[in-house]
Amino acid sequence: MITINLKPNTSKSLYIQLYESIKQDITGKILAPNSPLPSKRALAAHLGISVKTIENAYSQLLLEGYIYSVEKKGYFVSPLSDYRTRSAKDTPYVSKYHDETYLVDLKANKNNMEMFPASTWYRMMRETLSYDSAKLLDTVPFNGLLELRIAIAKYLLDFRGMVVSPDQIIIGAGTEYLYNRLIQLLGRDTFFAVEDPGYNKIRAIYRSNEVQYRAIPLDKEGICMDLLENSGCNVVHLSPAHHFPLGFVTPITRRLELLSWVNAQKGRYIIEDDYDSEYRYHGMPVQPLYAIDVRGKVIYMNTFSKSIAPAVRISFMVLPEDLMEKYISTMNFYSCSVSSFDQFTLARFIEGNYLERHINRMKRFYVKQHNDIVSAIRESSLRDNSSIIEDASGTHFLLKVQTSLSDSELIAHLHNRKILISCLSEYCEQYNPDYDSTLIVNYSGITTEQIMYFIKELEKVVGL
Amino acid sequence: MITINLKPNTSKSLYIQLYESIKQDITGKILAPNSPLPSKRALAAHLGISVKTIENAYSQLLLEGYIYSVEKKGYFVSPLSDYRTRSAKDTPYVSKYHDETYLVDLKANKNNMEMFPASTWYRMMRETLSYDSAKLLDTVPFNGLLELRIAIAKYLLDFRGMVVSPDQIIIGAGTEYLYNRLIQLLGRDTFFAVEDPGYNKIRAIYRSNEVQYRAIPLDKEGICMDLLENSGCNVVHLSPAHHFPLGFVTPITRRLELLSWVNAQKGRYIIEDDYDSEYRYHGMPVQPLYAIDVRGKVIYMNTFSKSIAPAVRISFMVLPEDLMEKYISTMNFYSCSVSSFDQFTLARFIEGNYLERHINRMKRFYVKQHNDIVSAIRESSLRDNSSIIEDASGTHFLLKVQTSLSDSELIAHLHNRKILISCLSEYCEQYNPDYDSTLIVNYSGITTEQIMYFIKELEKVVGL
Repeated sequence: MITINLKPNTSKSLYIQLYESIKQDITGKILAPNSPLPSKRALAAHLGISVKTIENAYSQLLLEGYIYSVEKKGYFVSPLSDYRTRSAKDTPYVSKYHDETYLVDLKANKNNMEMFPASTWYRMMRETLSYDSAKLLDTVPFNGLLELRIAIAKYLLDFRGMVVSPDQIIIGAGTEYLYNRLIQLLGRDTFFAVEDPGYNKIRAIYRSNEVQYRAIPLDKEGICMDLLENSGCNVVHLSPAHHFPLGFVTPITRRLELLSWVNAQKGRYIIEDDYDSEYRYHGMPVQPLYAIDVRGKVIYMNTFSKSIAPAVRISFMVLPEDLMEKYISTMNFYSCSVSSFDQFTLARFIEGNYLERHINRMKRFYVKQHNDIVSAIRESSLRDNSSIIEDASGTHFLLKVQTSLSDSELIAHLHNRKILISCLSEYCEQYNPDYDSTLIVNYSGITTEQIMYFIKELEKVVGL
Repeated sequence: MITINLKPNTSKSLYIQLYESIKQDITGKILAPNSPLPSKRALAAHLGISVKTIENAYSQLLLEGYIYSVEKKGYFVSPLSDYRTRSAKDTPYVSKYHDETYLVDLKANKNNMEMFPASTWYRMMRETLSYDSAKLLDTVPFNGLLELRIAIAKYLLDFRGMVVSPDQIIIGAGTEYLYNRLIQLLGRDTFFAVEDPGYNKIRAIYRSNEVQYRAIPLDKEGICMDLLENSGCNVVHLSPAHHFPLGFVTPITRRLELLSWVNAQKGRYIIEDDYDSEYRYHGMPVQPLYAIDVRGKVIYMNTFSKSIAPAVRISFMVLPEDLMEKYISTMNFYSCSVSSFDQFTLARFIEGNYLERHINRMKRFYVKQHNDIVSAIRESSLRDNSSIIEDASGTHFLLKVQTSLSDSELIAHLHNRKILISCLSEYCEQYNPDYDSTLIVNYSGITTEQIMYFIKELEKVVGL
C-alpha cells in the first residue's frame, strides 16, 4: 500500500501532494510497471483523507498518462522508460553573456535621454489610455492600425512629398522584421543587389535567410549602373537620400538611370531605405526616389527608431500596389508585430505635430554635436593628419587618418582604450584601398567629454 | 533669364520657392539640358533678392543633381530623361481593404475589455515611466531585457516546473516572429513535421519561408510515432499540454517515446508550443515536455498574447544551450523586436505576481463562459443532434453536429448570418471523415447574447 507523509499545513493542497508522491514512486520505479493501484476508497481509508482528494490526484495522473485505467479492474501504473527531470543545477541561472562596456560608443545609434521627447511621449501614452482604451484590445489589422497608417501617409505627403495611400503601408516591429517579410513576399528566387560599401546588416539578413545577393561597387554618384545591369540582380537595396556609410546623395541623373533600369524588366524593384533622411542640416531633405517613380517599382522603408528613438521599435514600408495585393493574398496571416498601444501613441505623436518639432529639435542638437566634434578635431594634432568626409546630414561622418596601422589594429587599439568604433572597410565586401584607415564616427549620443577622450586617445593610437 | 513669381508672404521661404521654380523648369524642359544658369549675382539683381537666397537654392539643386557646376564657368542644367512625379490622384487615399464585421466571432482569439487587467497594467506602465525611465533608452540586448528574462525564468520555475536560465530565453514580438527566427537558426535544410490536424499558421509560415514540412496524422495520444520515424523529418512541432484544435493531452508514455525519438539522432529537435497551458480548469497545468528533457532537445515557446491579452505582443522561446550558442554566433545581429517600455512593464507585471492573479481570474471567467455555452447547447434542440468534444482547458471546444451540409456549406451559411467560425477540417492537411461537421467553438471573448444568437442560428442552419 502507498504510504505518504501528507503535510496538512503547507500551501500545497493534499491532492497535489498525493499526486506528486505517487508520480515520484512511478518514475522512480518504486511502483512496478503495470502493477495495480489501490482503489480510491481503500486508499482514502488508509490515509484517512476524503475519496474526493484521491479522485483528484488519480485524475491528474490519468490525464498526464502516469497511470491507466482498465474498466471494472481499476487503475494501473504505466510502464515508463528512461524518465528523468532537469534539476536546477543542470542550468546556470545567472546570465553568462555580458555586453562589454565602453567609455565611448561611436558605433551604436543611441539617443541620449535628455533628447528623447519623454514628457510629450508619456503624455501621448496617457492620452491613449484615456481616449483609446476601448479600442486598445481590438485586433490590429495585419498591416497595422488604420489611425497610424493615415498619420504616416499625411506625414509622408507633407514632409517627403510622397503620395501614399494608408493601404500601401505595412507597420512592423523594426526594419529587420520588415526585410524578412519582404524576402518572403518577393520570393526566394529573388537575386538582391546591395551597395558595396553599404549597410552590412542587410547582407547579414540575406545570408541568414540563405537568399542570393551580390554587393555592387559604387562610383561617386551611387551604385555602378553597368555592374548592376550585368549582375543579373532583379531587386536593389539603396539609400539614395544619404548613403550609409559614405554619406553622399544620389543625384537626380543617377536616380533616373535607376528608374530606367527598374522599368526595363518585369519583376524588378528598388528597395529605398530612407533611414535618416529627416536629418539634413542645410537646405531641405532630399526628395525620395519613391516620389518620382510613377510605375510602382519602389518599395519605401523608414523607421521611427532613428527619427524618434531606438526605444520606439516601429518601422514601416510602403509597398507598390501590386506587391500589396500579393501580400494580402499570401501573407496577411501574419499578425501585426507592434502592440496597438504603441501604435496609438505614435499616431497621436505624429498627428499632434510632435514628430516634426522633435526632428527640428534633434537637427539643432546634431548640428551642435557635429560642430563640436569637428572643431575639436581641427584644434587637435589630428588636424594635419586626418580628413573629414561628410555631407552635413545624418548622425555620422567619416574620419580618414594617416597611420601605418591596419584597420583591425586601429580598431583593436581603440577597443583597448574602451572606445567602440567601426572602420569603413567593415562595411565593404570587396577590398578597396581608398577606404583604408577610415573611421565611421557616429556622434548621435556622445558627450563633449567623450569627444575629447576619443580625440586624445586617437592621437596616441596614430602616434601623434 | 529666369522669371519667378516669388510670394514673400507665404510660409515657404524664398529660397525654397526659387528652388522649386527652377526645378520645375528643368524637369518640364523649359530650361534646355546643358544650358547655363544665370550667375548668382545676376539672378539676385534681376529678382531683387539677396545673393545668399540664390546660393541656397542653387546648393539644393546641386545636391540633388538637377544642375551641375563647371569650374570658372558656372552652373548648368543637368540633362534629364523621362522625369515624372506621382500625383495625388494616382493613389487612392481612403482605405480599400475592410475587414468584414461579424455579430459573433468564434474564431478570433479575443479578450473582452473588462477582463484585461487594465488598471494594473497601466499602473505598471506608470511605474516603468517613474522608476525605469533612465534605463528606457538603453540598447536592449538582442535576446531581450535581462529583467524580463529573469522574471520569465522565475515564473517558469514556479508555475511550469521548468529550470531555465535567463540566458536561454529570447524575447520577440509574437510567436510568428520567433518561428521565422527559428527557421533561420535551424537552417533551411531542416525538414519540419507538424501535427495533422494542427495549428495551420505554422504550416503557412513554413510555406511562406519555402521550407520543407510534412503534416503527420495523429492517433488519440498525439503524433503517430511510426509515421514520424519514417517521415525523415528532424524537427517536430507539438503542443503536448493541449493539442490545438483537438484538445487532448499527450500522455507521459507518448512523451517518453518522443524524447527517445529526438535523442536517437543528432540534429533532431522538438518545438514545444505551450500556448494555453495556463488555462486548465480542473487539476494542475500539465507539466511541459521541456521539464523531462535532460539532453537539451526541446525548444519551448509561449506567448503573453494568450495568457494576458492579444494587445500584449510579447512572446518568448527557450533554446537549448547549443542552439543558443549558435544563435549568438550567427544571429545576434538581429535587434530585439519588443520596445524596452513594454518589456519593463511586463517584467513588473510578472514580478508583482499580477500574471498569476490574472490567470486565476481568467480561469474563473473562462470556466463560466464554457459552462454557459455548454448549458445553452444542452438546453437547445442541438442537444440530441450534436456532441461536444472537450478537455476542460484552453478557450475552445469542438462541436460535432449532425448535418447533411458539407463543411464549406456549413461555414458559408453561418457566415451569411454574420457568424465567423471554423471547421476542424480547415486545420487538416489530409481528409479524415471522422473530422467532418465539426465546428471549433472559441468562446474566449463572446457574450451571453452572442452565445444565444449563435445557437439559434446554428439550429436553423442544420435544419432543427
